[in-house]
Amino acid sequence: MVSLALGFIVEQLGGRLHGSPDTVITGLAPLATAGRGDLSFLSHPRYISQLSTSQAACIIVAQAHAPNAIERGCCLVVDNPYLYWAGLTQLWRQHVLPDKASELIHSSAVVSKTAYIHPTARIGPLCVVEDGASIGAGTWLKSRVTVSSGCVIGENCILHAGVVIGADGFGFALDQGQWVKIEQFGGVRIGNEVEIGANTCVDRGAIEDTVIEDGVKLDNLIQIGHNVHIGKHTAMAGCVGVAGSARIGAHCTVGGGAVILGHLELADHVHVSAASVVSHSLLKPGTYSGVFPIDENAAWQKNAASLRQLNALRERIRRLENNFNTSGS
Amino acid sequence: MVSLALGFIVEQLGGRLHGSPDTVITGLAPLATAGRGDLSFLSHPRYISQLSTSQAACIIVAQAHAPNAIERGCCLVVDNPYLYWAGLTQLWRQHVLPDKASELIHSSAVVSKTAYIHPTARIGPLCVVEDGASIGAGTWLKSRVTVSSGCVIGENCILHAGVVIGADGFGFALDQGQWVKIEQFGGVRIGNEVEIGANTCVDRGAIEDTVIEDGVKLDNLIQIGHNVHIGKHTAMAGCVGVAGSARIGAHCTVGGGAVILGHLELADHVHVSAASVVSHSLLKPGTYSGVFPIDENAAWQKNAASLRQLNALRERIRRLENNFNTSGS
Amino acid sequence: MVSLALGFIVEQLGGRLHGSPDTVITGLAPLATAGRGDLSFLSHPRYISQLSTSQAACIIVAQAHAPNAIERGCCLVVDNPYLYWAGLTQLWRQHVLPDKASELIHSSAVVSKTAYIHPTARIGPLCVVEDGASIGAGTWLKSRVTVSSGCVIGENCILHAGVVIGADGFGFALDQGQWVKIEQFGGVRIGNEVEIGANTCVDRGAIEDTVIEDGVKLDNLIQIGHNVHIGKHTAMAGCVGVAGSARIGAHCTVGGGAVILGHLELADHVHVSAASVVSHSLLKPGTYSGVFPIDENAAWQKNAASLRQLNALRERIRRLENNFNTSGS
Repeated sequence: MVSLALGFIVEQLGGRLHGSPDTVITGLAPLATAGRGDLSFLSHPRYISQLSTSQAACIIVAQAHAPNAIERGCCLVVDNPYLYWAGLTQLWRQHVLPDKASELIHSSAVVSKTAYIHPTARIGPLCVVEDGASIGAGTWLKSRVTVSSGCVIGENCILHAGVVIGADGFGFALDQGQWVKIEQFGGVRIGNEVEIGANTCVDRGAIEDTVIEDGVKLDNLIQIGHNVHIGKHTAMAGCVGVAGSARIGAHCTVGGGAVILGHLELADHVHVSAASVVSHSLLKPGTYSGVFPIDENAAWQKNAASLRQLNALRERIRRLENNFNTSGS
Repeated sequence: MVSLALGFIVEQLGGRLHGSPDTVITGLAPLATAGRGDLSFLSHPRYISQLSTSQAACIIVAQAHAPNAIERGCCLVVDNPYLYWAGLTQLWRQHVLPDKASELIHSSAVVSKTAYIHPTARIGPLCVVEDGASIGAGTWLKSRVTVSSGCVIGENCILHAGVVIGADGFGFALDQGQWVKIEQFGGVRIGNEVEIGANTCVDRGAIEDTVIEDGVKLDNLIQIGHNVHIGKHTAMAGCVGVAGSARIGAHCTVGGGAVILGHLELADHVHVSAASVVSHSLLKPGTYSGVFPIDENAAWQKNAASLRQLNALRERIRRLENNFNTSGS
Repeated sequence: MVSLALGFIVEQLGGRLHGSPDTVITGLAPLATAGRGDLSFLSHPRYISQLSTSQAACIIVAQAHAPNAIERGCCLVVDNPYLYWAGLTQLWRQHVLPDKASELIHSSAVVSKTAYIHPTARIGPLCVVEDGASIGAGTWLKSRVTVSSGCVIGENCILHAGVVIGADGFGFALDQGQWVKIEQFGGVRIGNEVEIGANTCVDRGAIEDTVIEDGVKLDNLIQIGHNVHIGKHTAMAGCVGVAGSARIGAHCTVGGGAVILGHLELADHVHVSAASVVSHSLLKPGTYSGVFPIDENAAWQKNAASLRQLNALRERIRRLENNFNTSGS
């Protein structure tokens, strides 16, 4: 079990402590369920009401909430509690994770002799790393990950279970109604500090590479088509699909289940709402949405039926306007 | 090959048999294609027309269809033919499945020494069960399943190929445009009699656990985010995405491809139609939908274009109404 | 490194060469980035402007672009450049791929003794082929593929990493609010020349088989429910979900992220746009769409709110029309 003194935490991560640096923290917990040994935090205003009643040993708060927190007891005042919390979880991880350095490449993994694995990279059980692939320093393939031939993964990446990097892009030419395969000779190049969620797939390029830049975070069950380019520090939630040759900027976010069609471009700082379908380029930063609002089934049915006549309704409005204008005063 | 006498089936599962208990059944088949050794069933009214011409040795029917079925020949009258059929398939399975008890944990599986595997659980080929994970009695991990460290699977569950339990939840804090990882210390707790489809992912919680209660059925390629809670006997069809911290009630159904956003709540007995997007809590039992109706492409294009001006159209209607009221009699 | 003379390529694939057959090609590349040893092609008119400046050793063009291409220098005139390119990539592959015949079944694969593997089939690392399954001539399971018991894969198929063939269909009967499993005894039958993308799942049938006919191409992360039938040469892009017992014709295309509900039928030559939801049978060839158009978030919000009152708006239009007709001339 981990136990860290508050004084040590402040030494490592900063912050202004109101309380004893000798207080020992034995767990991290949300405000509502924290016990007497736990460190907790208040970030989102919706949880303010839990501040006064929390049993936590200490609570991380922003300056704005310091007075209330101090009144309750021990607290740690920081600039950005959520970001501080992220750093704290990483500090905690360092103390909780047993050393596994004895076997960085699990004996059950299938690693080609021509693949390059940095001496500090970690290849989990039942992974496959094919010919000529390259895995950078500090990168961790969790379990059952495939990195196909020639694909390059940067440093300090995490690839979760079931990830497939470098399957063939979906490329076919039609020949009298039948599909003829276009062999895919491109690779996949993934930068540093990239995290890729479970069972997510990133296809190899047709001729040139599919590219994912530094700091990109992909959630689970995402499909990235061939020749896609994703800029730095862009994040995508689960179940997103990105079709071939889409070019996505830096610092974008894409909500869960969104679909981005192929051969289009998203500028930097474009934010796509969950389940929206991007059918044309979005060249201006901003937030974009396109989702049919959910409703009770009966109401939806009526509105959906009317929607199929919307253009006709528009025509009727125009006619009414014309009639009114000619008949009116 | 399995062969069971009708008398034995009735002894095991009940029902009122019209015909000889000595009739031997050698297969299960739909009405239309059943042969002379097959047992079949009529459940959905749309197949009534197939009753009289079916070659089946015997047909399972509800009381309402008994007269017609008896006229045709051998039949088995039961309260709920579809439910009876379910029981029958399980009885059949017991006789068709060869005993594999010789190797409950496949030699190719990678199972941590600190994981608990109940003596009756079955771990298929190339599965990974990490440190401190727990697999309950009678549970079966089919093949290539990952159960990550500390995750708990109850009794009599089935996890199909490619399932990933306990990958990290998607948690990051922004630091000047870059994502800082929030380490995920929660686990996944899965109840009894839960079935999880191929390549479905259930993420571990951030601090507390992701919870799936007894009797839940998840189809293939579903994403369950961190800290989600799914109540008893809820079922979800393929390709559903559930974002973090959503709280879903018991006895719900979620249609294929639906998306449920994070930090919201679904009451018990809420039914979400396929491909609908749940963007706010649904606190009343009922059926909810939100799907753009499909149409011939040209018609859709016109209606979609008009939809982008719908609010303006509404304004024009209001103006017409005002004009009419002032100008009218 | 591969190097092929233009003369050899023409000999193998046809086409009318303007330039020296002795020119040696050492790579394939897009127009914009091709170097002096590369062969390139012009197919889509949007790239015509790149023709004159491309550094490629030779460019494959259609008859219509021959005059411009000849003016630039060496070119190969063919009927259909994109199709020719497909053939060229296959020719290239034959020369680039090292012979791996020494171990067609990877030692890490788990293959049942009762499975049939054609002597020319290739089973990659960490694949699972269960009892009674059958893998046809020339078929390649890339890595970490599961083919479940009794499933049949035809000839010259490619199954990419993480594919799951023959997990149980999602079949349950309700018994007083609880789900009772319907055992799935059907199989999966996959024809010849079928390609299936990474982490895609094809479920086994309930009693009869799920069927995928010759020449079908499925992209990544697709879900095919039990008892689905997909006709010849149909192609589906990533993240598509097809519910149980849907019957899809031949020569169809389904765009990425589309959802096809169960127990319905698509005629041959039906094309479904990306992210559309097919909720009823489409019995006429054609293109069908149903997607909420994406917009700036503020505009979308207003239109979505109005959409929830669309049926009421329609009623108001009708009333206006009535009023006008009675009050008007």
